[in-house]
Amino acid sequence: MSSIPVSRATLRDLEHHAAFLERHIGPNDVEIAHMLRAVGHDSLEALTEAIVPASIKSTAPLALPDAVSEVEALAEIRAIAGRNQVFRSFIGQGYYGTHTPNVILRNILENPAWYTAYTPYQAEISQGRMEALINFQTMCADLTGMEIANASLLDESTAAAEAMTLAKRSAKSKSNVFFVSRGVHPQTVEVLRTRAEPMGIELVFGDDADAAATDCFGVLLQYPDTFGRIRDYRALADAVHARNGLVAVATDLLALTLIAAPGEWGADIVVGNSQRFGVPFGFGGPHAAFMACRDAYKRSMPGRLIGVSVDAEGKPAYRLTLQTREQHIRREKATSNICTAQVLLAVMASMYAVYHGAEGLTRIAHRTHRLATILAAALRKEGVHIGTDFFDTLHITGVDAEVVHARARAEGINLRRIDARSLGISLDETTTRDDVAALAALFGADASDIDGLDLDTRDALPEALLRSSAFLTHPVFNTHHSEHELLRYMRALSDKDLAMDRTMIPLGSCTMKLNATAEMIPVTWPEFANLHPLAPADQAAGYAQLIDQLEAMLAECTGYDAVSLQPNSGAQGEYAGLLAIRAYHRSRGEGHRDICLIPESAHGTNPASAQMCGMTVVVTKCDGNGNVDLDDIRRNAEKYSDRLAALMITYPSTHGVFEEDVVAICETIHQHGGQVYTDGANMNALVGVAKPGKWGSDVSHLNLHKTFCIPHGGGGPGVGPCAVKAHLAPFLPKTLGGEGGVGMVSAASFGSASILPISWMYITMMGSAGLRRATQVALLNANYIAKRLAPHYDTLYTGRNGLVAHECILDLRPLKDSTGISAEDVAKRLIDFGFHAPTLSFPVAGTLMVEPTESESQHELDRFIDAMIQIRDEIRAIEDGRLDREDNPLKHAPHTATAVAGSEWTHAYPRELAAFPLPSLKLQKYWPPVARVDNVYGDKNVMCACIPVDAYREPADA
Amino acid sequence: MSSIPVSRATLRDLEHHAAFLERHIGPNDVEIAHMLRAVGHDSLEALTEAIVPASIKSTAPLALPDAVSEVEALAEIRAIAGRNQVFRSFIGQGYYGTHTPNVILRNILENPAWYTAYTPYQAEISQGRMEALINFQTMCADLTGMEIANASLLDESTAAAEAMTLAKRSAKSKSNVFFVSRGVHPQTVEVLRTRAEPMGIELVFGDDADAAATDCFGVLLQYPDTFGRIRDYRALADAVHARNGLVAVATDLLALTLIAAPGEWGADIVVGNSQRFGVPFGFGGPHAAFMACRDAYKRSMPGRLIGVSVDAEGKPAYRLTLQTREQHIRREKATSNICTAQVLLAVMASMYAVYHGAEGLTRIAHRTHRLATILAAALRKEGVHIGTDFFDTLHITGVDAEVVHARARAEGINLRRIDARSLGISLDETTTRDDVAALAALFGADASDIDGLDLDTRDALPEALLRSSAFLTHPVFNTHHSEHELLRYMRALSDKDLAMDRTMIPLGSCTMKLNATAEMIPVTWPEFANLHPLAPADQAAGYAQLIDQLEAMLAECTGYDAVSLQPNSGAQGEYAGLLAIRAYHRSRGEGHRDICLIPESAHGTNPASAQMCGMTVVVTKCDGNGNVDLDDIRRNAEKYSDRLAALMITYPSTHGVFEEDVVAICETIHQHGGQVYTDGANMNALVGVAKPGKWGSDVSHLNLHKTFCIPHGGGGPGVGPCAVKAHLAPFLPKTLGGEGGVGMVSAASFGSASILPISWMYITMMGSAGLRRATQVALLNANYIAKRLAPHYDTLYTGRNGLVAHECILDLRPLKDSTGISAEDVAKRLIDFGFHAPTLSFPVAGTLMVEPTESESQHELDRFIDAMIQIRDEIRAIEDGRLDREDNPLKHAPHTATAVAGSEWTHAYPRELAAFPLPSLKLQKYWPPVARVDNVYGDKNVMCACIPVDAYREPADA
Repeated sequence: MSSIPVSRATLRDLEHHAAFLERHIGPNDVEIAHMLRAVGHDSLEALTEAIVPASIKSTAPLALPDAVSEVEALAEIRAIAGRNQVFRSFIGQGYYGTHTPNVILRNILENPAWYTAYTPYQAEISQGRMEALINFQTMCADLTGMEIANASLLDESTAAAEAMTLAKRSAKSKSNVFFVSRGVHPQTVEVLRTRAEPMGIELVFGDDADAAATDCFGVLLQYPDTFGRIRDYRALADAVHARNGLVAVATDLLALTLIAAPGEWGADIVVGNSQRFGVPFGFGGPHAAFMACRDAYKRSMPGRLIGVSVDAEGKPAYRLTLQTREQHIRREKATSNICTAQVLLAVMASMYAVYHGAEGLTRIAHRTHRLATILAAALRKEGVHIGTDFFDTLHITGVDAEVVHARARAEGINLRRIDARSLGISLDETTTRDDVAALAALFGADASDIDGLDLDTRDALPEALLRSSAFLTHPVFNTHHSEHELLRYMRALSDKDLAMDRTMIPLGSCTMKLNATAEMIPVTWPEFANLHPLAPADQAAGYAQLIDQLEAMLAECTGYDAVSLQPNSGAQGEYAGLLAIRAYHRSRGEGHRDICLIPESAHGTNPASAQMCGMTVVVTKCDGNGNVDLDDIRRNAEKYSDRLAALMITYPSTHGVFEEDVVAICETIHQHGGQVYTDGANMNALVGVAKPGKWGSDVSHLNLHKTFCIPHGGGGPGVGPCAVKAHLAPFLPKTLGGEGGVGMVSAASFGSASILPISWMYITMMGSAGLRRATQVALLNANYIAKRLAPHYDTLYTGRNGLVAHECILDLRPLKDSTGISAEDVAKRLIDFGFHAPTLSFPVAGTLMVEPTESESQHELDRFIDAMIQIRDEIRAIEDGRLDREDNPLKHAPHTATAVAGSEWTHAYPRELAAFPLPSLKLQKYWPPVARVDNVYGDKNVMCACIPVDAYREPADA
Repeated sequence: MSSIPVSRATLRDLEHHAAFLERHIGPNDVEIAHMLRAVGHDSLEALTEAIVPASIKSTAPLALPDAVSEVEALAEIRAIAGRNQVFRSFIGQGYYGTHTPNVILRNILENPAWYTAYTPYQAEISQGRMEALINFQTMCADLTGMEIANASLLDESTAAAEAMTLAKRSAKSKSNVFFVSRGVHPQTVEVLRTRAEPMGIELVFGDDADAAATDCFGVLLQYPDTFGRIRDYRALADAVHARNGLVAVATDLLALTLIAAPGEWGADIVVGNSQRFGVPFGFGGPHAAFMACRDAYKRSMPGRLIGVSVDAEGKPAYRLTLQTREQHIRREKATSNICTAQVLLAVMASMYAVYHGAEGLTRIAHRTHRLATILAAALRKEGVHIGTDFFDTLHITGVDAEVVHARARAEGINLRRIDARSLGISLDETTTRDDVAALAALFGADASDIDGLDLDTRDALPEALLRSSAFLTHPVFNTHHSEHELLRYMRALSDKDLAMDRTMIPLGSCTMKLNATAEMIPVTWPEFANLHPLAPADQAAGYAQLIDQLEAMLAECTGYDAVSLQPNSGAQGEYAGLLAIRAYHRSRGEGHRDICLIPESAHGTNPASAQMCGMTVVVTKCDGNGNVDLDDIRRNAEKYSDRLAALMITYPSTHGVFEEDVVAICETIHQHGGQVYTDGANMNALVGVAKPGKWGSDVSHLNLHKTFCIPHGGGGPGVGPCAVKAHLAPFLPKTLGGEGGVGMVSAASFGSASILPISWMYITMMGSAGLRRATQVALLNANYIAKRLAPHYDTLYTGRNGLVAHECILDLRPLKDSTGISAEDVAKRLIDFGFHAPTLSFPVAGTLMVEPTESESQHELDRFIDAMIQIRDEIRAIEDGRLDREDNPLKHAPHTATAVAGSEWTHAYPRELAAFPLPSLKLQKYWPPVARVDNVYGDKNVMCACIPVDAYREPADA
């Protein structure tokens, strides 16, 4: 039999290294062609040409490698991971080994139903994760003995800094001094130094005994302290209170199962890290920190607070009592720039507590403590000197530390480095008998008879500080202890919520794109997950390579010269960028420059970060097209020319437009001695198309959790690298123990290191051409929606050629005027169609801002467009009088199954219209678990702990 | 500060190695105490005493190690996995490297919503996986060019054996000869030999050319053949048909994207393995095989067939057109004992096709082929002799094979061993340029200029057999090509279904217990997943250890002396057991023993397997209590004393009772020269409590997917080890290339090896005491349900002290008589409560058999009991006339959201009763995607491929 002629496709064609591109980008070539026709352009290039001003457009492709397939990229990053060495780490210092329960690992951390969810601003489709977060709040409040706790902060050190500023705001004392105990963790000291100085707060460090004698608005204590010592702070707290100061305490949740809660001995604010509740080290993050405080301070607390309200049917329903979203940040009056939380990690930690319950947690704590006492006993027999009154950490003094560290290293063990004569050993949930024996052997001690030592050894907890109060008594912590029960509980919660595994989430400014599985897979590899953040550098060679490469990739994408990955949220990155500007001016003897110009359309974090840096915010105007007013900027730059520190600008603008004047604006600012800060929130419209670092901007933060595929996790983690031009590079944050820079902005030197593989994978798999194509399709998708909806809704702002950038603002204000239907009504009605609403009333009240991203297919866009058109028809029916102005499906949206399938139906419109406004909904329907949540009730009745079981009872069975 | 006194809990208490036990077993100690009170016993020991006959009760604990924690067990099995070496395998022979798309890996294989589902017998809660399976059927039918395909078989070799028997039943030829091509894979030849002999089929082996000259009822060809050659079988097929024989073909789905479909050249039956569609090697399994055939044979096809019917609302709905469940097996008239399928793997393979589509699959196939031709060209330049007309496999002859294998081994490469002068190299989706260069180098050839070779090399496919027909044209294979689209499609399908991540599945006889995450985790480790089944033994040292240990564990649990893990389903294990009995008799010169006694209460597979072994089934009676009738057994044993081969008995009985007479029964059978086969389906009531191998039984199969935690996967995989006493050990199945034994019963020597870690983990984590406690709690849970439901439903059979074993049969026949409500109505009504129905009408028509297992908490049991009581109240309302006999919520169950929330409601009972019969359902509600499925319509209108999109259109939009 003869063979056929040479095949037409070459091997190279068939290898298809860019296969990932087709998985990431939603529309296929046929759809792209169709959509281009709809928006009236011939090609993606022509569309880009029409949208992006020539003055900023990149001419050369990104100097990044070509795309590689998922398999190839995973092989590459596997090799990088292989360069990390996972030692047994007993370093402690705020980070402890833990066993992530496997059922939580697989079904939360590795489950897109959880990790692709958005922040719970739309309460009705977020009841599941809000219940998990209220469990987190209850857990933190219970264990700390405080009245209220928030739904996570970024890390313990920034939480401590937030405690400092909360104390400053709340204390009656007029002192400007904040006393910091010498027992506080070093990384927290670093972050406090960074944060205090621009705000003019004076830090005084001292032994605990000194605190009582210091006039201060607050103190920060560590309990147990960084050396493991558990001290009785009662008298000290009384003394601080007597001087009208507040007592802030950084603590350890596991220790609190055994020792008295800070709330029981006088603490006013308690912070800490929940990492050891089932969240891996991750070389420093992400983990969920928390803040708990007395009820009196709840309205000053930073971060998010989940509360209980009621829905339109009168049933209990969760909502965000304190939000941190752009529009809720009080701009230049803000007291914190906190925006992102650590929701995914808080959910994990809360589930860890739900699974173990009080008894299980206490058992883990007690076992850890027993092993520590056994190790101490063995060491003392050899004459080793060890501190007293400890929980899990031994402070060992009077030894030749280098000798011990060298021995430890040979055994694959890391101990904490303190100084030449002392070191620390922290035990944890994962510590075994073998570990204790190996640790003892490092000192020539024998701990082979563990059971013998166990019998002979007393607990080392101070008797006066033993915990006697109960905690985690709510049924939720006492019913899900079998794997089936926990699995079903987690599934039931996630089923209440809408995440990206069920629908697009077209949130303007928030870029909810695909978080590909291949990107997520390396995160939970032991080589990335199990490295202690203070592990010696030679054990972290893989991380070093990953971080170097990712920094270089991001620099290339943005046109900047240097990048810091330390900031663990966008707002932190912004803060780091402004700190760099401030330090730069000071380095040139221009420390007096303190004016920060911010257009009125800016993200709310911008002014908040500026004021945290000690800058004075001057707001500049926007014109009728939503563009920044160049003249007003020029006027103000001239007016404040001597004091001008910076302009903060978002590009493309928060109005979803590529403004033409950005180059001129940068020139103006520079002429007046200022620096230009470009908010990177909208970088998804720029990658491969234009580079802020090349058009005159000096610094940006990026949101890796927006443009670079780190999932939003239900409201965190985020990663907010700070990218700068060369002249600002010396002023990027320093690492712990490192030199230079502006100080640390996060607890860990590389922030949320363990999720950096996600962005690395994304960039590697997309390659230079793919990243550009992603941007172009993002532009196409947004314009396709704007165009298709044009007959029904006005798009508020457009740029050149009548095109929008990567998002469009639908103006609903005229409809409100004519029918009383608000943007919120439309947002809630979208839930009946199974959609998460677009961004509501930001940046303009009464509008919806839609950002589809490149990952949504035409099919999904059309589904959304169909829903919006149907909604417009309903509004039209109100206009026409076919639907009642009050009793219509928009005002009563969303509709629950219990309402629609109930025996009584009193509405003026039919049930089918309520539930199935489009026929496709009969094939697939999301039912919200609650009706519209009552915000006013929730604000009036702040209730932020688990709901008593009785609250769910029907009147009939009460 | 002084320390507190020596702590009360010792370290040993706090270590809590048995922690897994508390995760696996549903009820906690408080619940167990409460439930014991309810059933009237003081302790689990007392309850066990009351249930289990003294004659069989074990006195000593299982000689297994103590329980270890999840962490410890994972560390142990990690070490075992580390003893496997993962070479690059180019062995082929039916198993090929493949890339599991990451989104499928995480969201199907590692997702409990898919892997914990049960077989789709309850159609209304199984629409999602049935859609995935109908995609599988469509994929197989399209690619093979056949009219119909089934929803998976166990492996290609047993599928070929089923093809043989299908041909025997269906061919007009009266010949007893089945012709097997020499091009068939060796493992298939082995399985055919095993299967043919007891059925009296004569196998004739020959070159393809010989087939035309052989009078036979069928032929089996391999296309491409085992040596990679693609032959044109058209003339041969005509010749076989002319002699009234049927043409069966074993084929390769990937090759069929490029070469003519067997259906296009005369095949009547086509089988194969879908492994290379994204399912890892797994050292031999599990993978989904398939059978496709002409429409004429569809009602004779073995295995399951998904079809399309309509529901009570007239909408399209899937159902099992061909079932294989116990009650559907036609017992001694059965033509196959096939019961389990490979659903989870079939779903994966179908999603692989959905994700890649025809174009993507063709690209993969073509790339693989290109690389093969390039390698061939490079080798031929060095004078290596290679067969022609190949797809992916090179048959290399005239070399010193040992030298090449030695070189390959040094490079970490496996090639196929054929003989001293020849070998095979099969390329696949994962093959890279580097692989080709490395392979060429083994022969001293140079393939460094791959692109040059590419240009110079023609395809090696026979021109006359190039594929021209289209395939996978249905939209489902053309719309989910982006990751978001596929992710959402998979989520939408799984959301339609009820699996164990949402509810207990209280299936009598099917033991749906917890499939713990820790058990699942090792399955996807590369060291277990990526080993080719024919990898040299020294690369599989970890598997050898795992298999040895698991065999020993199972022997200890059952009291037998030897175990084979080869059978990849319970029915295969049963078949292997009967083959062992048959061979044993023959070895003693008693080959005439051919009578198999089987009680009428037995599982349907029992007689089916017996007839496959050439035995004659004699059915014995049961008494009024559901027990086997000892007298009838004795009578028949005496009557057939000379011919008695075996008794097959299930223990505890399929009626859920510990029968008292089992020891006496065994003695009787032995007295008459027979062997006792104990069906291990109900082993969950025995582990740690009694051992069949010790009370007189000679052989059992076990269902690892029941008692030993392998998940049901929506209807497979299963694992059915065969356990025997020492005298039968020589007659267990042999391994491929091994000696002795009765021949192979599965394609792979160790069956579904890659899921054996699940059972190993379970046994290791439970430990000796834990396994016993699990059994005791399983008994308690069943008796608690029986007791609590006693005022409402009669339990059909009980044993001593009025207690049941691990399951109870609720008798609904009296209610049917009084109200017309059938057991099926109750089963369907349970869906409205969010429950998967218990086993329906097995072993007794008109009943529900409930098996809660030990993994369900009291909370979950109570939820089920509440539902059953509410249902009983509804039936009572019919009795009382408060509900209509026809128009009531039972007859119309299940209720869809579209029905209950529709604008029209015509039923005589209220909507709320339909949808929310209990208040708790308002907090959490499962909505079935379809109303009751019409079985009669489906039987009359067999339609087994993807539903045309138009079928979903509403009349309004048509």
